[in-house]
Amino acid sequence: VLVKHPSTDVVIVGGGFAGVACAKALAAHEIAVTLIDKHNYQQFQPLLYQVATGMLAAPDVARPLRGQFSHHPTVKVKEAEIDKVDPVAKTVTTVDGLTFGGDYLVLAAGAQPNFFGTPGAEEFAFPLYSLDDAELLRSRVFQVLEDADLDPRLLERGALNFVVIGGGATGVETAGALADLINEVLPRRFRDLPLHDARIHVVDLGDTLLNGFADESRAYAAKALEERGVHVHLGTSAKEITADRVVLSDGSHILTRTVVWGGGLQAAELAGSCGVVPGKGGRIDVEADLSIAGLPGVYAAGDVANIPGPDGRPLPQLGSVALQAGTAAARSIVADVEGRPRPAFQYRDKGIMAMIGRRAAVAQVGKRPHVLTGRLAFLSWLGVHAYLLSGFRERADALVAWGWDYLSKSRATSVIDRPSAARIDWSRVDEGS
Amino acid sequence: VLVKHPSTDVVIVGGGFAGVACAKALAAHEIAVTLIDKHNYQQFQPLLYQVATGMLAAPDVARPLRGQFSHHPTVKVKEAEIDKVDPVAKTVTTVDGLTFGGDYLVLAAGAQPNFFGTPGAEEFAFPLYSLDDAELLRSRVFQVLEDADLDPRLLERGALNFVVIGGGATGVETAGALADLINEVLPRRFRDLPLHDARIHVVDLGDTLLNGFADESRAYAAKALEERGVHVHLGTSAKEITADRVVLSDGSHILTRTVVWGGGLQAAELAGSCGVVPGKGGRIDVEADLSIAGLPGVYAAGDVANIPGPDGRPLPQLGSVALQAGTAAARSIVADVEGRPRPAFQYRDKGIMAMIGRRAAVAQVGKRPHVLTGRLAFLSWLGVHAYLLSGFRERADALVAWGWDYLSKSRATSVIDRPSAARIDWSRVDEGS
Repeated sequence: VLVKHPSTDVVIVGGGFAGVACAKALAAHEIAVTLIDKHNYQQFQPLLYQVATGMLAAPDVARPLRGQFSHHPTVKVKEAEIDKVDPVAKTVTTVDGLTFGGDYLVLAAGAQPNFFGTPGAEEFAFPLYSLDDAELLRSRVFQVLEDADLDPRLLERGALNFVVIGGGATGVETAGALADLINEVLPRRFRDLPLHDARIHVVDLGDTLLNGFADESRAYAAKALEERGVHVHLGTSAKEITADRVVLSDGSHILTRTVVWGGGLQAAELAGSCGVVPGKGGRIDVEADLSIAGLPGVYAAGDVANIPGPDGRPLPQLGSVALQAGTAAARSIVADVEGRPRPAFQYRDKGIMAMIGRRAAVAQVGKRPHVLTGRLAFLSWLGVHAYLLSGFRERADALVAWGWDYLSKSRATSVIDRPSAARIDWSRVDEGS
Repeated sequence: VLVKHPSTDVVIVGGGFAGVACAKALAAHEIAVTLIDKHNYQQFQPLLYQVATGMLAAPDVARPLRGQFSHHPTVKVKEAEIDKVDPVAKTVTTVDGLTFGGDYLVLAAGAQPNFFGTPGAEEFAFPLYSLDDAELLRSRVFQVLEDADLDPRLLERGALNFVVIGGGATGVETAGALADLINEVLPRRFRDLPLHDARIHVVDLGDTLLNGFADESRAYAAKALEERGVHVHLGTSAKEITADRVVLSDGSHILTRTVVWGGGLQAAELAGSCGVVPGKGGRIDVEADLSIAGLPGVYAAGDVANIPGPDGRPLPQLGSVALQAGTAAARSIVADVEGRPRPAFQYRDKGIMAMIGRRAAVAQVGKRPHVLTGRLAFLSWLGVHAYLLSGFRERADALVAWGWDYLSKSRATSVIDRPSAARIDWSRVDEGS
């Protein structure tokens, strides 16, 4: 241990929806907090697919953590990557050997993509869970178009094929946004490209898209995607991803240089290092008060945790669950501090929504399915997300961007600024399959 | 040669102020243009220092080239890096071996930083000429603050020292913006850092800052910077830059991990490959009509060219010069096409301006110097740049960002999203000097 920071009341690991909500709730009670994240910003996952398709700029969906707590003097923000958790001493150690300790520990380190051991996925597919992921994917999407425009021979090699693995909300929204981009925005920008030959594929092992939505919504989503030219492959998995193709479980393959991994999440690695046996998805099983059995003073919330729902099954990995659970963890700590029994967390279901394209969305509010089309779909979605985006700057900017995008069919943020991800080694060809 | 693109009327190499202005002017005459740039966007150099200090987001100062010509069907945009120019055949070849040819060639490839052979500058200093430069520098600036906040031992090793090489407009604006950031924005965000110990240094070999401005403006700029805590070292050069310090020509050194190179530009490499002996700064000497002596049908404009001014001396490397010269090159080509004599380019001096901080600027309009202070400085500068920024999206977004920043002293775009530049190897220490 090189530097030991002064102890504080609560150490929170992770500055996502759960960690930030927890810190804000504790700040209101003047409880001293150290909030640690490996990034200096909070990212808004539900909109990352829009960054990847050039509809929003990175700062629209990333909010600097220090700015959020500049008026909360009891909250310290530290940018550091946590390597080890000692849940008994209630300390955490960074990869550089610095330690932070507190009377309470909140683990809210989020999730990471789960490639389920698919060969080549980690090397060749683009996940879509972090801001970095989204910026890398954007550079790849626009670069593959530029390359094909420059060298028409690349068309036969799958330059205009885009494969999305996973038919959940992330996969459906990404495929829909890519379809809008290709159908509505690119034709005037890439006049030399045969964009009618572009193909978007969605691959999912299940027998339906948008698992968790009502039958009516699922059927509409499938229809809306197909109307936009998206090919949906159900009951199919990606057996292997190579430099130049995706090999499917039915033995066929799709030539492509752009594979989006929307295929599932697992808990951040931290979950395995806190001394409890990981539960489903590698996540930390928590009690109804967000505490961890056998570890007094340690709580977990957000995508890193399995949080029991009203029917006993874990709640889904959603931003609204994380946000409410973070606040609930703070309530438990306040109860501890005040010597009261801890309240049980009760999730208030705000509904779920998926945007299939500029003018199509499905939503489910209080179990009731809604299918939204045309301008109404766009406006509802706009309203919901503008409401969810906290912070004026992001909200104002994103509204300007969305409104402008909707009206002009432009993509102001289609810059290729990540050369490492953009550059495609076209000489790499998989001769094997 | 792998792929030969169909010949066009005019091939323009470079999509900066000069190339874009030239293409737009030619499009108005329905002359077919192929515009080639290594990026898929045009960047707005005069505001890059604002991206580097977190005041603007990258998309605010980068405009996708294809979007600018989506309503000009006679202009093709290609993203490619040009390796060779054949000024006689009037063809250009990309690094991947694709060729483009036309009846006319316009070289507008811009400039690159000139390190003047300073040891270590290329490896350790951050230039500020491209969007990439600005994003890398931003990540470094905010990372060094996070690192120092995490490990106070780094304070003694220069973590809070910032060195700007060059006292021209870029250097002065960067130093001023850094001072505003440190004095006005950071104190509420980095409450644990001793920000009063932060030091910004400007190093310039000349005997004055802002060469080219009137005496009165220079004196004011020096005073305004010093009032903001910036140390100005005149008559001094950077002898060497190492991993942990800048060694000055007077034998002293400054420990630092953040060196900004605002020390000069030279022509893009392309200038040396077009068969003429390069002039001052490696640039291509052009005639008054932007043509190149001995190369009929080839023109050069913008930072890649030495353009003669009214007194015979070359015009300065400014955005407004590049923009007007690009249009003038188009006028020369139109004259060629129509069989008329080519008009001589006459630069209309719109004046120059440098922003020393949020509330201080100097300007020179028609040789008359202006010193602007307080809100007036900010509003004038805002007006000038909002006017210069072409394209609604950028203008609206930038105005929102600037207004918000001015009112709130926040930095919404302070995200560290370039890990390669952000990561500092603190173990590297130069024992020699």
